[in-house]
Amino acid sequence: MSAITTEDQLASFTLAAGFHSAATACGLKKNGALDLALVWSDMPCAAAGVFTTNRVQAAPVLVDHRTLKVASGRIRGVFANAGCANAVTGERGLADAYRMQALGARAIGAADDEVLVLSTGVIGVFLDMDRLAAGVTALRGPGAQTAPHAVTRAITTTDTRPKVASAEFTLAGRRVRLAGFAKGAGMIHPNMATMLAVITTDAAIDAAALDRALTAAVGHSFNRISVDGDMSTNDTVLVLANGASGATIASAAEEAAFVAALADVCASLARQIARDGEGATRLVELRITGGASEHQAHRVGDSIACSPLVKTAIHGNDPNWGRVLAAAGYSGEAIEPDKVRLWFGDGDAIQLLDRGLPVAFDKTKASGLLQHDPAIIHLDLGLGDASTTVWTCDFSAEYVSINADYTT
Amino acid sequence: MSAITTEDQLASFTLAAGFHSAATACGLKKNGALDLALVWSDMPCAAAGVFTTNRVQAAPVLVDHRTLKVASGRIRGVFANAGCANAVTGERGLADAYRMQALGARAIGAADDEVLVLSTGVIGVFLDMDRLAAGVTALRGPGAQTAPHAVTRAITTTDTRPKVASAEFTLAGRRVRLAGFAKGAGMIHPNMATMLAVITTDAAIDAAALDRALTAAVGHSFNRISVDGDMSTNDTVLVLANGASGATIASAAEEAAFVAALADVCASLARQIARDGEGATRLVELRITGGASEHQAHRVGDSIACSPLVKTAIHGNDPNWGRVLAAAGYSGEAIEPDKVRLWFGDGDAIQLLDRGLPVAFDKTKASGLLQHDPAIIHLDLGLGDASTTVWTCDFSAEYVSINADYTT
Repeated sequence: MSAITTEDQLASFTLAAGFHSAATACGLKKNGALDLALVWSDMPCAAAGVFTTNRVQAAPVLVDHRTLKVASGRIRGVFANAGCANAVTGERGLADAYRMQALGARAIGAADDEVLVLSTGVIGVFLDMDRLAAGVTALRGPGAQTAPHAVTRAITTTDTRPKVASAEFTLAGRRVRLAGFAKGAGMIHPNMATMLAVITTDAAIDAAALDRALTAAVGHSFNRISVDGDMSTNDTVLVLANGASGATIASAAEEAAFVAALADVCASLARQIARDGEGATRLVELRITGGASEHQAHRVGDSIACSPLVKTAIHGNDPNWGRVLAAAGYSGEAIEPDKVRLWFGDGDAIQLLDRGLPVAFDKTKASGLLQHDPAIIHLDLGLGDASTTVWTCDFSAEYVSINADYTT
Repeated sequence: MSAITTEDQLASFTLAAGFHSAATACGLKKNGALDLALVWSDMPCAAAGVFTTNRVQAAPVLVDHRTLKVASGRIRGVFANAGCANAVTGERGLADAYRMQALGARAIGAADDEVLVLSTGVIGVFLDMDRLAAGVTALRGPGAQTAPHAVTRAITTTDTRPKVASAEFTLAGRRVRLAGFAKGAGMIHPNMATMLAVITTDAAIDAAALDRALTAAVGHSFNRISVDGDMSTNDTVLVLANGASGATIASAAEEAAFVAALADVCASLARQIARDGEGATRLVELRITGGASEHQAHRVGDSIACSPLVKTAIHGNDPNWGRVLAAAGYSGEAIEPDKVRLWFGDGDAIQLLDRGLPVAFDKTKASGLLQHDPAIIHLDLGLGDASTTVWTCDFSAEYVSINADYTT
C-alpha cells in the first residue's frame, strides 16, 4: 500500500457495509473548510478505542473513555470536529463534550452514550456550541456532503491530504471489509499524537476481542510513527464493528485473520500520517534489527526518529550517518557501539558502519538513497534477534513556517 | 551576566592566573579558520571533568576519563581540536586520541597523562594526524595566536559567537578567579551536548573537592539547557585549578563560595550556549515551580524545552500556550492539569492558565512578551515547593538550513 492516498483512491473510498457519513462546514475552521463529520451505522456496533497517554487529556478523550466502559457493545456512531481541540478547558470543556455527544446522538437517533466524540485543533479554546448545534442540523440536511471522502477532509487540520486505507478477507465464504481514515501531521509521536483515526468494519466481533485486536494493531502502527516528538492531548483511534457482513469472528484463527487485516489498515494510515508530517518531503523507514528485545529495538528506533539532526540531514540528502549513531547512543538503551552495523537503502544497498567502524562509501550514491521515498535506514544492533520498523519523515524549514504561526 | 558575549568582553577576556593559551589553524576546518587550541598552566593543576552519558562516546572522552582516574591531581593542560569529533572511530580513533594527548604533552613539556584532549566536529571521520602534528608545532611557534579569545574561537563549529564567562571572590584577602570558555550550538541537550567547556581557576583545591564542585555546578547549568534534544558523543566540561592565587579552598564555607562562583560561570556559559542555539533568535527561560520534587520540575521543564511545537510558536511570537501544557503533559511526570498555572513574562506579566482553566488574555501583549530576549515562561505545577529553571531557544527555519547540509 502506498504512503500517499491518491485522488483516485480517495474518490472511490467507501466505509464498510452498513456505515454512512456526512460532513459540513460550521465555521470552526476560520477558512470555511469542512470541519464537522458524522459517521454512523445502521445497526449497533462493538467498539474499541486507544487514547493518548498524555497526562493532559482532552475532554472528548475523557468522554470516549467513559462511554466505552459502559457501552462498548452498542455504539452507533462517531461525531467529530476540527478547528478546536476542546483540551485544557476544565469542567466547562467536559460539559461541552457531553453536549456534543448528545447532539451527535440526536442527529442519528441514538442514545447519548452510544456516540463517540473526537475533537482536534487549537488547545485551550472552548468549543463554539452554537456553531456545533447549527452544524449538526446541517449534517442531516440536504446540504451535507455525504461522499465518504468528505469526512476524511473534515477532520484534518494542517494535513496536506486525507489518509484512507482498507483491507478485505474472506471468512466462510463471506467477504469482511475494514475501511478507515485518519488525520495527523504535527504533534505526531508515540504513543499517538494529534492523530485521529476511525476504522469501520462489517465484521461481527465482540467488544473484548475488538479491544485486543486494536491494541495489537496500534502497537505496530500508530505507536511506531513520529513526526516531531510531541504527543498530543487528543490522540484517539476508534474502531467500530457492525456485523453487516454476516461474518462472525469467533475462533482464534478468525481473530488472527481479523487482527492481520486491522494491522494492515492501521499501518497504512500510520505511514500516510508520517509521510504527511508537517513540511515533510518524504517518508523515512527505520529498520532496527539485532535488538536484545523488541522494546529495545523500538526505543532505539524512536530515538532516531525523533532526532532533528537526523531528520534535517535526510532532508538535505546529507549522508551524515554519525547522527544516526549518536541518536541510538542516547536512546537510554544499552547498545554496544562496536557491534553496530548501519546501511542506507533497501536490500542494504550501502553499508556505512561495520561493527562500530566506518566503512568507506560512495557519498553521491548514499546521498541519492536518502532522496528515495521512503528513505530507508537499517541499523543492526548486533545484540539479539528482535526487530522493529519505525516510520518518520524528513524535517524541512516548512515545518517551522507552519508551526510558528498557527493560532495568530 | 548577559546571555551574549560582546566583542569588548571577548577582547578583554583572560584565563585565570598562571594559565596560557595558543590557537592555530591546521586545516581540519575546510574554511581555514582556527581549529586547534592549547591551554596550559605554569604549575600542575587539580582537574575534574563531566562527560556525555551517550552510550556512543568519542575517543577523547574515553581518554580523558582514564586520564583523570590516574592523574587528576597533576594535570598540566588541555589540547583541543574542532572539525573532527574523533567519534565512532573504533580502536584506531582511540589510538589517535592517545597520540593527540602525547602531541599536546610534548608541546608543553608535560608527561602524556598530564594532558586532557577535546575534539568536536563531524562524527565517523578519522583525525588527520599529520595536520595535527604540524599544527601542534605551530601552536608553540611565533605564528600562533596567543590572545585568550583565540582559543575560544578555535573550538567552535556552528557557533555564531564564542562564549566566555568569569567570576571572582575573595578568600582571606586573596582574590580567587575563575575564567572559562565553551562551545556548542547544535546537538545541545541534557545531559550535555556537542558542548565543550574549559574552566580555569587559580584557586588551590584538591581534586576530590573540585570534582564535587563541578558535579554540583553542572547539574544546575549545562544539564539545564536544551537546543534540539540531541545529545552528543563528545560533550565534556573540564575544570583546571592551579593554585596560582595562593588561596586554598579548605573549609566547608570556602568550598561553598567556590561552588557558587563555579556555578555562576557554568550557568553563564550554559545560557550563552542556549542563546546561540543553531538558528536561534532568542533565549527562552522556563521557570518551573510548584513541583513535588526538583527532579519532577526538571523533567517537566526539559519536556517543554525539547518541544519543537513550543519552540516554533515562540519563534513566531504565537501565544499558543496549549503546546506548553501538552509538552508538560507528556513529560512522564504525574502532573495534575487542574492544579497548573501558567504565565508569560518576567514577574508573571500575563497569566494564561489558572488551575487548569484558560484565562482571557491580551494576545498582542502576550505575543510581545514572547519577543523578549530572554522570553520567560513560568509554569507552576501546584504540587509542592520544588522549582528549577531550564534554558532553551526558539526554533527557526535557519536551524534546518544549518543542519540539512553539514558534511556535504
